[in-house]
Amino acid sequence: MVSLLTFGETMLRLSPPEGERIETARELDFRSAGAESNVAVTASRLETDACWMSKLPDSPLGRRAVRDVAANSVETEISWSSDGRMGTYYIEQGRKPRGTSVIYDRDDAAIRTASIDEFPVDELFASAKAFYTSGITPALSPTLRETTNELLRRATRNGLTTYFDVNYRAKLWTPEEARNCLTDIFANVDVLIVAERDAEQILNQHGSAKSIAETLRTEHQCEVVIVTRGSDGAVAATETGVLEQRAFVADTLDPIGTGDAFVGAFIASQLAGDSVTDSLETGAATAAVKRTLEGDLALVTPEEIDRVKKEQTDEIDR
Amino acid sequence: MVSLLTFGETMLRLSPPEGERIETARELDFRSAGAESNVAVTASRLETDACWMSKLPDSPLGRRAVRDVAANSVETEISWSSDGRMGTYYIEQGRKPRGTSVIYDRDDAAIRTASIDEFPVDELFASAKAFYTSGITPALSPTLRETTNELLRRATRNGLTTYFDVNYRAKLWTPEEARNCLTDIFANVDVLIVAERDAEQILNQHGSAKSIAETLRTEHQCEVVIVTRGSDGAVAATETGVLEQRAFVADTLDPIGTGDAFVGAFIASQLAGDSVTDSLETGAATAAVKRTLEGDLALVTPEEIDRVKKEQTDEIDR
Amino acid sequence: MVSLLTFGETMLRLSPPEGERIETARELDFRSAGAESNVAVTASRLETDACWMSKLPDSPLGRRAVRDVAANSVETEISWSSDGRMGTYYIEQGRKPRGTSVIYDRDDAAIRTASIDEFPVDELFASAKAFYTSGITPALSPTLRETTNELLRRATRNGLTTYFDVNYRAKLWTPEEARNCLTDIFANVDVLIVAERDAEQILNQHGSAKSIAETLRTEHQCEVVIVTRGSDGAVAATETGVLEQRAFVADTLDPIGTGDAFVGAFIASQLAGDSVTDSLETGAATAAVKRTLEGDLALVTPEEIDRVKKEQTDEIDR
Amino acid sequence: MVSLLTFGETMLRLSPPEGERIETARELDFRSAGAESNVAVTASRLETDACWMSKLPDSPLGRRAVRDVAANSVETEISWSSDGRMGTYYIEQGRKPRGTSVIYDRDDAAIRTASIDEFPVDELFASAKAFYTSGITPALSPTLRETTNELLRRATRNGLTTYFDVNYRAKLWTPEEARNCLTDIFANVDVLIVAERDAEQILNQHGSAKSIAETLRTEHQCEVVIVTRGSDGAVAATETGVLEQRAFVADTLDPIGTGDAFVGAFIASQLAGDSVTDSLETGAATAAVKRTLEGDLALVTPEEIDRVKKEQTDEIDR
Amino acid sequence: MVSLLTFGETMLRLSPPEGERIETARELDFRSAGAESNVAVTASRLETDACWMSKLPDSPLGRRAVRDVAANSVETEISWSSDGRMGTYYIEQGRKPRGTSVIYDRDDAAIRTASIDEFPVDELFASAKAFYTSGITPALSPTLRETTNELLRRATRNGLTTYFDVNYRAKLWTPEEARNCLTDIFANVDVLIVAERDAEQILNQHGSAKSIAETLRTEHQCEVVIVTRGSDGAVAATETGVLEQRAFVADTLDPIGTGDAFVGAFIASQLAGDSVTDSLETGAATAAVKRTLEGDLALVTPEEIDRVKKEQTDEIDR
Amino acid sequence: MVSLLTFGETMLRLSPPEGERIETARELDFRSAGAESNVAVTASRLETDACWMSKLPDSPLGRRAVRDVAANSVETEISWSSDGRMGTYYIEQGRKPRGTSVIYDRDDAAIRTASIDEFPVDELFASAKAFYTSGITPALSPTLRETTNELLRRATRNGLTTYFDVNYRAKLWTPEEARNCLTDIFANVDVLIVAERDAEQILNQHGSAKSIAETLRTEHQCEVVIVTRGSDGAVAATETGVLEQRAFVADTLDPIGTGDAFVGAFIASQLAGDSVTDSLETGAATAAVKRTLEGDLALVTPEEIDRVKKEQTDEIDR
Repeated sequence: MVSLLTFGETMLRLSPPEGERIETARELDFRSAGAESNVAVTASRLETDACWMSKLPDSPLGRRAVRDVAANSVETEISWSSDGRMGTYYIEQGRKPRGTSVIYDRDDAAIRTASIDEFPVDELFASAKAFYTSGITPALSPTLRETTNELLRRATRNGLTTYFDVNYRAKLWTPEEARNCLTDIFANVDVLIVAERDAEQILNQHGSAKSIAETLRTEHQCEVVIVTRGSDGAVAATETGVLEQRAFVADTLDPIGTGDAFVGAFIASQLAGDSVTDSLETGAATAAVKRTLEGDLALVTPEEIDRVKKEQTDEIDR
Repeated sequence: MVSLLTFGETMLRLSPPEGERIETARELDFRSAGAESNVAVTASRLETDACWMSKLPDSPLGRRAVRDVAANSVETEISWSSDGRMGTYYIEQGRKPRGTSVIYDRDDAAIRTASIDEFPVDELFASAKAFYTSGITPALSPTLRETTNELLRRATRNGLTTYFDVNYRAKLWTPEEARNCLTDIFANVDVLIVAERDAEQILNQHGSAKSIAETLRTEHQCEVVIVTRGSDGAVAATETGVLEQRAFVADTLDPIGTGDAFVGAFIASQLAGDSVTDSLETGAATAAVKRTLEGDLALVTPEEIDRVKKEQTDEIDR
Repeated sequence: MVSLLTFGETMLRLSPPEGERIETARELDFRSAGAESNVAVTASRLETDACWMSKLPDSPLGRRAVRDVAANSVETEISWSSDGRMGTYYIEQGRKPRGTSVIYDRDDAAIRTASIDEFPVDELFASAKAFYTSGITPALSPTLRETTNELLRRATRNGLTTYFDVNYRAKLWTPEEARNCLTDIFANVDVLIVAERDAEQILNQHGSAKSIAETLRTEHQCEVVIVTRGSDGAVAATETGVLEQRAFVADTLDPIGTGDAFVGAFIASQLAGDSVTDSLETGAATAAVKRTLEGDLALVTPEEIDRVKKEQTDEIDR
Repeated sequence: MVSLLTFGETMLRLSPPEGERIETARELDFRSAGAESNVAVTASRLETDACWMSKLPDSPLGRRAVRDVAANSVETEISWSSDGRMGTYYIEQGRKPRGTSVIYDRDDAAIRTASIDEFPVDELFASAKAFYTSGITPALSPTLRETTNELLRRATRNGLTTYFDVNYRAKLWTPEEARNCLTDIFANVDVLIVAERDAEQILNQHGSAKSIAETLRTEHQCEVVIVTRGSDGAVAATETGVLEQRAFVADTLDPIGTGDAFVGAFIASQLAGDSVTDSLETGAATAAVKRTLEGDLALVTPEEIDRVKKEQTDEIDR
Repeated sequence: MVSLLTFGETMLRLSPPEGERIETARELDFRSAGAESNVAVTASRLETDACWMSKLPDSPLGRRAVRDVAANSVETEISWSSDGRMGTYYIEQGRKPRGTSVIYDRDDAAIRTASIDEFPVDELFASAKAFYTSGITPALSPTLRETTNELLRRATRNGLTTYFDVNYRAKLWTPEEARNCLTDIFANVDVLIVAERDAEQILNQHGSAKSIAETLRTEHQCEVVIVTRGSDGAVAATETGVLEQRAFVADTLDPIGTGDAFVGAFIASQLAGDSVTDSLETGAATAAVKRTLEGDLALVTPEEIDRVKKEQTDEIDR
Repeated sequence: MVSLLTFGETMLRLSPPEGERIETARELDFRSAGAESNVAVTASRLETDACWMSKLPDSPLGRRAVRDVAANSVETEISWSSDGRMGTYYIEQGRKPRGTSVIYDRDDAAIRTASIDEFPVDELFASAKAFYTSGITPALSPTLRETTNELLRRATRNGLTTYFDVNYRAKLWTPEEARNCLTDIFANVDVLIVAERDAEQILNQHGSAKSIAETLRTEHQCEVVIVTRGSDGAVAATETGVLEQRAFVADTLDPIGTGDAFVGAFIASQLAGDSVTDSLETGAATAAVKRTLEGDLALVTPEEIDRVKKEQTDEIDR
């Protein structure tokens, strides 16, 4: 009985120890990660029955990705492929002023040829309440563009709430290509999440985060549009007005996956029947805890998130 | 020729690497630690002949604890037991807002049945100048409550200075149980150390740290009462008035054991004939260095503590 | 849709690096393991839909066990408990003549109080084809003795094939206690697995492995009785006679879990419709590959097991 | 002043710790390796001025490969490319019966487009005495087939001794494709090295290793043809007859790169003016030491190889 | 074709993991480092053809140092010695207030007996444009004092620009000894680098950094004198006046080698024809990135340094 | 109350991981070791009150050695020195045919100047029953030659049993120097231990191990002379004849320290009142277990040694 269904690529993630570089490291930390599996994992940690759908090479590399997701009690629905690679990325996290650098090696990933009929979509949509994918998926190939559109269309038709995070990746497509594609996609999106910078640079939005959220909401007839602003928090345009959520203070060990933690927790909270206000706070608290964890995954507990929300509030009350 | 004798439980300590959780770690850092052995180790590092007395299961787990203490040239006086477990705790240290969480697995520790006649107390008290235990010990079992009281009584009778740190652990007993027990115990305590929060919540003290220290000193007829206040330093009520000690600025890697470092260094300094003022400063400097070390133990050197005290003072002078 | 259901304790497993001891290790390898989850994992790796049922403390320690099992796509059905510990064991593997030593710290495990009505047994038995538990389970507490008996009774009543591995643990009960209890249990066991040494010392069987297998089969009216003999392979008494299976040549890195690998693979093969002869060979090949893997789990692939079986056969043909 | 020039691909090499699998490893050992850079490194360790020529992506991944080679005082002559990937392989080494498995992820490597005019060949051939490449290079792309042929032709024309190791890789081309290509290549090869199995399966040779070596030598008009036979040693057909070389007894930690160690040491010995007999022995001794080292590289010293040769001889004498 | 030549000692560097001490560490990080090889490596990373000249024991320890330098594509010109040790130092980096402590074990290093005729100086000076050594070299032995003077003299005579970093080490000589020796040396130094503290304590300079730089420049007739001031940046007295360079904001992981990174980058920039102003900025940016890397070496890329310089500037513009 | 007193050098021991070399290792295993502290540790593990006496530099390096010894509950009596180094050795253990290589860096160790009056010898000899040192000690310096002789003389005069292991080190002195020195020393040795090879090459003994033992015993008027023969066991010439002891079968992980384990266990057994026959067996069993442990120390337990002796015997009985 799946409640949340997500669809997208998951890659292998290799990273050197702190203070080392890819050029010098003798050992690499080895994980797998992808926006859509990250979101499913976060939601599962917060007690949502989640399922991640993908296409993977039928090899130990592909099975590794499934293993990392299944460990978090997320169901997996995989189209196993004899063609295509496992996308891979190398990430080197440096302190200031070195910063974080990512090297993508994701060409020819098996998922690029995934079409909707490779998945038991009817069965999954029968029970699911929500569907999520991100702007990375349609950016990967023309086939995936179609598959993404079709999945959103059918999800909508089946009465699911559709969540979509723009997640623009400059190495995959140009702003113009993205804009053209996304406009179609937004037609079937109920809840749109977009980073302020992407809204400006890709969606050509201007003005305050609030006005961007409202404009996008109106323009694309979404239920909710969330504009995320990193350490400046997030704003959400809803039917009843614009809401604001501060970012929780966090001491960052690993920033990767913070956005997915926010979205996964927001969806879990929404599926649990919380208000948008509460869901935004849960999202922000989860994102903050994620920052203290190595790897893309927000391996949190509901109790922990409650405590963080409470302590944060306490701090304000004093 | 033992100068300081301590008595109490030492547990195994297991902790995941930074950024990992107990749920995900593939390797755990493995140490042993306990307030009373920590204090003995700190004192020994500062050139005090120290001996730690305890009861342990006769197994590699029990011997491990002895090994970690003996490595620091602390003598050990162990009652080896074929019954009872080795108490264990898991510690997960997270950055803000995750914080530190501890999972205790300490039921049925071998020490719970330790009675005073299992140890060569007469011989040890003949040479020792000081005795130390903490509020954890009587909290572990009724037998230990008796043993603690008896040890303090005999130490006093033998002319030793008795040091006692309240160290309240909510998972071991209620505030009320603690209060009842501790009142008896304080009758044989010369130097009482208590965290400000414990003084308030367990001992029902109110007002400034200074007034709490003075009240407790009068009430329990102690020589010295030290109220510790974390990054706000400590105050000590003495015969000649109340002294204040600032905390030294420290960049914390591992906060566990900081209090024991303070107490161990304070005792070592007292045994070396320093004034209470000097001993408080030595305690504070040692606690600060401890914060930079992984594990509970303050593996410092006297020269290092002198340097820290000097540099700190210099900074103030300018 | 579960095909194989298993029930039993899973413990935390801590082990020092090669060449180190528990007394000296600074880091411990951290895993979780238990006969019944090991069997479920092995079966799942060989394409059986498996579910592991247990009772665990509601803590990161309990969740860790679930995580390790779920990573292998085994479903988990957990009764979460606020009482009871997480059983733990320390394992030190030494070369000759030091050998392997295990320290159990498993008293008061949460599972000891598990009764059948804490689990959705009816639902699970409706789909499952096979049930497995081992002699460790009834040895843990009187409650578990009842629960084990009741589970086997109901499994039988629901038409499942029941598998039972004697797995005698001297630290849990005496041979006599075991014998008394197991005789009752065997009444509802279809496939009995027993180590030759346990058959002799606990079940008072004598003679050749073959005759032991046949005697036990007749005495307890089992379908199949498998007597395992370590590097001497196994014999199976069946309706149509006694079968023999050699052990595959293996260079052992970690022997723990070899028996569970054999049983899990045997069950998976049986559920796939293979003959007992084939299932024994699959079991033996899987056990051999397990010996090359660190930890209790036989993280094999079907292709790999096929290759091992084929190569082994080739070796014989020459 | 380069004495030996080699040309070929070097890949990233990722491998899990012993007892772990790619599916489970949390850390991967990270190195780079390729037949032609391995040979250059071995030769350099044995005091040959060596240079490795290749084409690499202009990224930290490409620079990593250069770094690993340069550390061994091998000169590098790189055509830096903005297109193409860094070939990668995952290697899982298991004890018996699991064995070693390799997953190649080498499509679209930058080197596939390397043409001869990307390198300062004239300058390099002016000083070099020997050129080496292997059958992997022409198998990677049609362009590389041409480049390989052209390099061998020009090397021959410049009076260099050309060394070629067949190194058949079934995942790159069929036996027939290989055969067709290699026949052309052999026309410009002075010293041909081929594994007995490749000689049989790819070059359609039959009979004893000796007769294979002689037949190939005659057929392709080589100076020397070496047929390698793993633990059975090697035979070399020369102008003055066939020589035999036993393999040195070795306890294998990592077998990968053993063949390259043999070839690199053979070439270094030849360049130092040793006889073929001596060079074969040096090759075999170096290959044996390589087996005790993690990674593809034979990081030996001349003294060590002399000692191994001497001790081995001593053992025989007794 | 060497552009920059450096001469000096390189030592083995051993350091415990963070939070551990030399007294407790079970594993030590193992590298090699020395001011002059550090400078050569930094320059090489920034596309300068660099060569490091030294004298080392002919052992794996000596070869280790060569390997670490050669990995960075620095040429090495070594006088191999059968006498003398490999200098070694232990470094323990602690957070505040513990700080960093270094234990030198460098007596009797092989380099102490190095005379100029052990190196092919004529050949190297024929192509090189710049020569660098530091005040550590003459401090090591009377022989090295002579060798240093002679190298600087000949470099000057051959038209090279000579760079010299005072690098005072109190454990090697007294301020007076240093002063006497350095005055001679400065006669052949074109670009002098000196820490403000050393200028004050060793060279008896007083006043502002600017005036110190100018005074030293006049006194010793240098082209440029750079006074470095840690987090306060640097000032450079040049023919056309005094320049100031701020330190870039950096989050320090390992401060060791920061000065060498500054100097190496400054020299590389000068050799590339940049202005002193630009070279100072490149030096400061490289020093800042070095602070984020473990070990003495500034393993940077030119692109990275450009980005840091640019971002830094942007931050100021806002 | 010390029962066994030992005197000698302890060095730092650095070793790369398996498969790595000193030239390539990024991390070194870090321990301390020396024949005389190894013997004290082994004896302590087998319940002998042991004390190790030495002279060390007053630094973290010196304290490290004390710590490693004290962890095994051995008392330490150290003359702390401000002069002299901490001897160090690097050990690279390779499989066949690479073998084990050791690089000593032990010149100018602090112990070289140790004279007898730096230690409270009278007090220690008052309680001790046995004294042990090895041939390494007098080889280190003329001063130590005197000190060794004087210690043995006084030990004898005080009625202690003196144990001496020849332990010839070719890098410290010539066979002739050793022979001259040792002849004097033997005059005060009760129990002499010598490897067969040293007896032949240094002491000019010939014939069977038995006859060598007997000859040495007669010549030097020892109580017992033990000739050790590696995997061929040992023979002991005693008052009542010559005894033979087989080596126990062992799978060697680390051979270093095996001889010290044998001697330490032999002495412990003798001090416990066992017969020479029993002590030899205890020595051999302890040496065998040592081979399975990383590092020089035989961290065994009495129970374990009893089990090994029993199992070994059982194997023979069958």
